[in-house]
Amino acid sequence: MSTPLLLAVAQAETAVRTEHFFLVLIAILLAAKVLGELAERFGQPAVLGELLAGVLLGASVLGVVPTEGAVNETVHLLAEVGVAILLFEIGLETDLREMFRVGPAATLVALVGVVAPFLLGFIYWMAVTPDIGTHAANIDDLEVAIFVGATLTATSVGITARVLGDLGHLHTREARVVIGAAVVDDVLGLVILAIVSGLAVGVTPTAGGIILKFIIAIGFLVAAVVIGNRIAPRLFSLIDRMQVRGILLVSALSFGLLFAALAGLAGSAMIIGSFAAGIVLSSTNQFDVITERIKPVADVFTPIFFVAVGAGVNVALFMPWSSEFDLSVLVVGGVLLAIAIVGKVVSGFAVGWGRRKLSHLAIGVGMIPRGEVGLIFAHLGLVEGILSQQVFSAILIMVMATTFLAPPLLKPAFASLGAKDAPPLESDMQPGRHGA
Amino acid sequence: MSTPLLLAVAQAETAVRTEHFFLVLIAILLAAKVLGELAERFGQPAVLGELLAGVLLGASVLGVVPTEGAVNETVHLLAEVGVAILLFEIGLETDLREMFRVGPAATLVALVGVVAPFLLGFIYWMAVTPDIGTHAANIDDLEVAIFVGATLTATSVGITARVLGDLGHLHTREARVVIGAAVVDDVLGLVILAIVSGLAVGVTPTAGGIILKFIIAIGFLVAAVVIGNRIAPRLFSLIDRMQVRGILLVSALSFGLLFAALAGLAGSAMIIGSFAAGIVLSSTNQFDVITERIKPVADVFTPIFFVAVGAGVNVALFMPWSSEFDLSVLVVGGVLLAIAIVGKVVSGFAVGWGRRKLSHLAIGVGMIPRGEVGLIFAHLGLVEGILSQQVFSAILIMVMATTFLAPPLLKPAFASLGAKDAPPLESDMQPGRHGA
Repeated sequence: MSTPLLLAVAQAETAVRTEHFFLVLIAILLAAKVLGELAERFGQPAVLGELLAGVLLGASVLGVVPTEGAVNETVHLLAEVGVAILLFEIGLETDLREMFRVGPAATLVALVGVVAPFLLGFIYWMAVTPDIGTHAANIDDLEVAIFVGATLTATSVGITARVLGDLGHLHTREARVVIGAAVVDDVLGLVILAIVSGLAVGVTPTAGGIILKFIIAIGFLVAAVVIGNRIAPRLFSLIDRMQVRGILLVSALSFGLLFAALAGLAGSAMIIGSFAAGIVLSSTNQFDVITERIKPVADVFTPIFFVAVGAGVNVALFMPWSSEFDLSVLVVGGVLLAIAIVGKVVSGFAVGWGRRKLSHLAIGVGMIPRGEVGLIFAHLGLVEGILSQQVFSAILIMVMATTFLAPPLLKPAFASLGAKDAPPLESDMQPGRHGA
Repeated sequence: MSTPLLLAVAQAETAVRTEHFFLVLIAILLAAKVLGELAERFGQPAVLGELLAGVLLGASVLGVVPTEGAVNETVHLLAEVGVAILLFEIGLETDLREMFRVGPAATLVALVGVVAPFLLGFIYWMAVTPDIGTHAANIDDLEVAIFVGATLTATSVGITARVLGDLGHLHTREARVVIGAAVVDDVLGLVILAIVSGLAVGVTPTAGGIILKFIIAIGFLVAAVVIGNRIAPRLFSLIDRMQVRGILLVSALSFGLLFAALAGLAGSAMIIGSFAAGIVLSSTNQFDVITERIKPVADVFTPIFFVAVGAGVNVALFMPWSSEFDLSVLVVGGVLLAIAIVGKVVSGFAVGWGRRKLSHLAIGVGMIPRGEVGLIFAHLGLVEGILSQQVFSAILIMVMATTFLAPPLLKPAFASLGAKDAPPLESDMQPGRHGA
């Protein structure tokens, strides 16, 4: 008679898993919105509250968001949908001609913003060689320094874009430069990832391999926008003639997710794909309806991403009474944080000196937040034994701190630019496209 | 050097899993909408197209929707969210006073619609004892007959409600009776499930156990609506004063999912909970905004449920050239289908004879679709060895056929009722609440 019992247990587990998932989803959504509201009441962007909600719900505080199992995997996949929709929305609000106009500036900011923190981090590590935790005998300080430098490079476009959107500054030229630079940054990040992954397994990267990675990433973005711009208007005229409920929203959403999946399969970052899809659809006749209908869907999915990011934080690292607390880790983390901030702020001073003035500080501060890419590098180094647990924790502190510092720093940095979403000076921007 | 390789593989799998999930989600959404559009062009409700999309994407045809693994589990959980949102939307469009008004009629329809097909199925099996496949020696025909009868009882409120919504008939009194009866049906289904589960493990059900199950199910629905009606207006006035983007939508959605989870944890059906939550919110001041904002979210989630239902269909059962094809199974399935249709159609004739005339046929046909509950019973019987693989397949055919027959049958049955969503005669229904 064990089979019936087993079946009953299995059924109960399946049933309870669904309810468990519902409760986790509710906790994520409500905590994100309530803390987002609180953040706004304290004059901060809502995304800060969503990140804090994640910290609260994460394993190190309440443990509501599970760290393994089906519910964890589902939350993780929904978070990926959330960040894809976020970049798709940002793409929708992006004017391609304006992007091209800021293209050179954005590329310059991205390059300086990758090279400066890398060099600063590398030099700091080689000069000071902070002794926090041991690493394997076959690893030399040069490798560690390269890894530490690499983790300092990649800006998290998600955090910055959300904050600028929350504050209503997405349509300033500074914001365009930052978003553009963050996208270029993601492309550069893929190249750096290829190099450090090679290093991690003892393969010296070839120039050919690096160039190939670069061409794929850039090529995908260009091809997506060029081909998409030819196909999308006809496709969406066709879809517009269909009658069934939700067809336009679902088609647009699928378009965004498809570009994301294609980007990923082509070896690029998925969010580059959904961003490209948004840019493409921003030039269709159905733009207004798509933007309006995607909003409630984004309201549901996007917070899941930021809560998931926050849930990865281990608060014990900051608690003096915790067994995991280590002052030297905090000190090294603080130094890396300073490097991370300085290295990106200087990138803002690479542009905006010419005829068209730009706020260097706004751009530099906009580049500060690090996120998943930095964590991927750090995790790779930890698993390969190149980074000790302590160095990994210090990098984690740096990544977390940039993420949490960015919102309160961005607000004053952009406030000096004047009115929220003031209409840009360029006369060729369509009117009525730039409301919130 | 195996660790780096393993890591690389693990990372590649994680990465590809995200892209795989995106592609599956895109396939589900696009196939659902395109076939939904085609169904409407052929004068059928969109949900028929969504079910067919599921059959196409399921394991027996294209195999796009995986049958195991993280992507499968995520799709399954999203399907549960989809059906919860569907019932929440239907609850939002339900007027509680009108529900009470149709309450007695709905209860009568539900009772007849459970008893009639059960008795017909039971008598058929005891009289004919069709010999399709063997079952264990310790199982007698009485048990098989009870199981077969039980699988014929539960109406799938999801299918019927979607079809009536697609056709614009949700606000006819007949539709209200059907929806109400289907909800009562779900409650009765839980009681029947308790009895047959007991039978399956050799436990004779006690009257006390049956009554307890019944009280829990009814009690939850009443308590949810009564308590919810006291709390919701104040809660949503508070939420209305909050500023952060998406707060009202996310709160309403969480409210619906919370009631679903609570219903499930209380031992009731989850969809009863989300239906109750919708009823409660339909009396708040924020009703209009909630209804409007939840729509795009429903457009994304609801098709996932119907595609998942369709994906469970094994088309090989109907293909004469297939090795799984068995004519006697088809014949028994056909008989069960006839019983399933007749048993529910007669329930429509239990009401509507008095002062207020109702279309008996519209109500009876509305009760036809079976769904997940019947499949749960059948699956339980199969695993316990009470039902042979062949009997299980015959029941599967019956469930599938009722699901696919309902949309084309419902259309003419309700067409005779006149104009779509004509304003009801009762003067106390709020105007402006009944547009599509």
